[in-house]
Amino acid sequence: MALDAVSWLDGDDPAIGFIDQRALPGELVRARAGRVDEVVHAIETLAVRGAPAIGVFAAYGVALARLTHADDGAYREAVARVRAARPTAVNLAWAVDRMLAAGGTLAEARAIHAEQRAVDLALGRHGAEVMPVRGAVLTHCNTGPLATAGLGSALGVIVAAHDAGKQLHVYVDETRPLLQGARLTTYELAEAGVPATLIADGAAAATMRLKNVAAVIVGADRIATNGDAANKIGTYGVAVAAAHHGIPFYVAAPRSTIDFTLRDGSGIVIEERPASELRHVGGVATAPAEVDVFNPAFDVTPGRLIAGIITEYGIARPPYDESIPDLATRPSFAFILS
Amino acid sequence: MALDAVSWLDGDDPAIGFIDQRALPGELVRARAGRVDEVVHAIETLAVRGAPAIGVFAAYGVALARLTHADDGAYREAVARVRAARPTAVNLAWAVDRMLAAGGTLAEARAIHAEQRAVDLALGRHGAEVMPVRGAVLTHCNTGPLATAGLGSALGVIVAAHDAGKQLHVYVDETRPLLQGARLTTYELAEAGVPATLIADGAAAATMRLKNVAAVIVGADRIATNGDAANKIGTYGVAVAAAHHGIPFYVAAPRSTIDFTLRDGSGIVIEERPASELRHVGGVATAPAEVDVFNPAFDVTPGRLIAGIITEYGIARPPYDESIPDLATRPSFAFILS
Repeated sequence: MALDAVSWLDGDDPAIGFIDQRALPGELVRARAGRVDEVVHAIETLAVRGAPAIGVFAAYGVALARLTHADDGAYREAVARVRAARPTAVNLAWAVDRMLAAGGTLAEARAIHAEQRAVDLALGRHGAEVMPVRGAVLTHCNTGPLATAGLGSALGVIVAAHDAGKQLHVYVDETRPLLQGARLTTYELAEAGVPATLIADGAAAATMRLKNVAAVIVGADRIATNGDAANKIGTYGVAVAAAHHGIPFYVAAPRSTIDFTLRDGSGIVIEERPASELRHVGGVATAPAEVDVFNPAFDVTPGRLIAGIITEYGIARPPYDESIPDLATRPSFAFILS
Repeated sequence: MALDAVSWLDGDDPAIGFIDQRALPGELVRARAGRVDEVVHAIETLAVRGAPAIGVFAAYGVALARLTHADDGAYREAVARVRAARPTAVNLAWAVDRMLAAGGTLAEARAIHAEQRAVDLALGRHGAEVMPVRGAVLTHCNTGPLATAGLGSALGVIVAAHDAGKQLHVYVDETRPLLQGARLTTYELAEAGVPATLIADGAAAATMRLKNVAAVIVGADRIATNGDAANKIGTYGVAVAAAHHGIPFYVAAPRSTIDFTLRDGSGIVIEERPASELRHVGGVATAPAEVDVFNPAFDVTPGRLIAGIITEYGIARPPYDESIPDLATRPSFAFILS
């Protein structure tokens, strides 16, 4: 894979390789973390971001801590610092806890990474089947290899369809305020050789009409059992516009994204991010310094606007109250791989 | 009016005062044009922008040319340069031609400005009646005094409603790529004392749901007789989201915006703007340098999504095929003022 967001470096000294995503789109900076401090710093500064990629990176981080701390107390203290690097990241805590339970071995970290890749691969293959044979598709935010340390979720579907010979042209929302679509997704698509065009978020509805968009596909951060899906701010508006144009709107996300305890999206608390994200772009002021800002990080797309939820087990279709709980019964990919 | 986008300066030497909009939101720079060269430069560099504001500025520019050129040939040459400063601006050519026909007098320029103010005032009063008594409204792009050299169109409606005692809170789309909402509209609303909150364009749909938006109001660049309205890119998506939430979507624009020869929006050619607007913000790279970009300046909102078109003559309602042609028969504001 050309874009290894995270990888274990086989050398004399134990170390993790990662792409410093802060330097994109300007530069592809491959960095190295040989100390737990550097792992924590990379997560804190968003040099490594995307929930699944953070999970894989943290797993390697625990292995690094085990290999570089003979003292058990020092090891546990180092692991605690990795776990606390981003308090709200579910995958981070999950990966660290699993590593701790397995004794912090490098083999366990490699297994977590391999499972992530296998999940993405399966998800991509299922999703590729519902992509058009040729035509325009539209996506929002970043869901590719940089985000998952695998093939990606929604972007993995697009790349898998492209690799299977489907002739797709991808319209990429720039995804304000943090511009993950502009900075990262266009970069990943260029790396994968998939034709892509960047648009302003506000141009999505006009693009659907003018460019005959055949499908919309996005990722998700959390999914309720009725199909309601929380994802990057802007997703809901794209889903509404897709419905208006009769375009199928797909969500691609691993089963781990589904909260089987959540009956609908009303229980999802929407994190608000700093006003500075809308007052500045890269240090350039874009609004009056004191302007009031509403900057929700996510929105919730109702399940009724979603044509299918693409997972590593196949595509859940409406009614989601039946198809989603059914996914909970499937064997885990860890089991399948072992 | 606190924000005089354009005004004639009463001093010893003939000169036009204007706000250099390029310095906003950082600074309110009041500049002075005492030579025709400076008028042309201000239009070319977008120091003065907004179609009606350009028209008023150009009218004063012709008066300035007449006052500073005794020679008739030199006067006509100077006027031709003003007229060519932005070739596609309809109001610019219209104002220059009217000034030429009237002998380039300062009185005619003042009349053009007074008519613009009267049109905005009437439009604002009609529109204020359909604004909610209290609640949230949402707008897109810039339609205030900086854009019209009067009270504004859509923003004029909001300010008129506020001044009439309605308790509005305005959510302002930042309006990528050129950020007119973030840079200019939030500034105008602060000057007018209207509570306002800036949002990312992608947050509009979520804001409608989470903040109980009661009405959406935008401007227009060109309107067909069936109500189809071309306006800044992003307007169409906002209209679709408003329809999805059952929120009335209003267009506020002077009658001069209506093209009575155009039966629907399919005949409106959509200008595409440079890719650089999406690849950079204020010199900061936001996407790979070579990324393909689709950057339409406008989109067309179908008349069936529009609850009413607010003009200086009142509010045209569906069916627009009847209500819009009726507007063509009304006496002009020039006639009313004379």
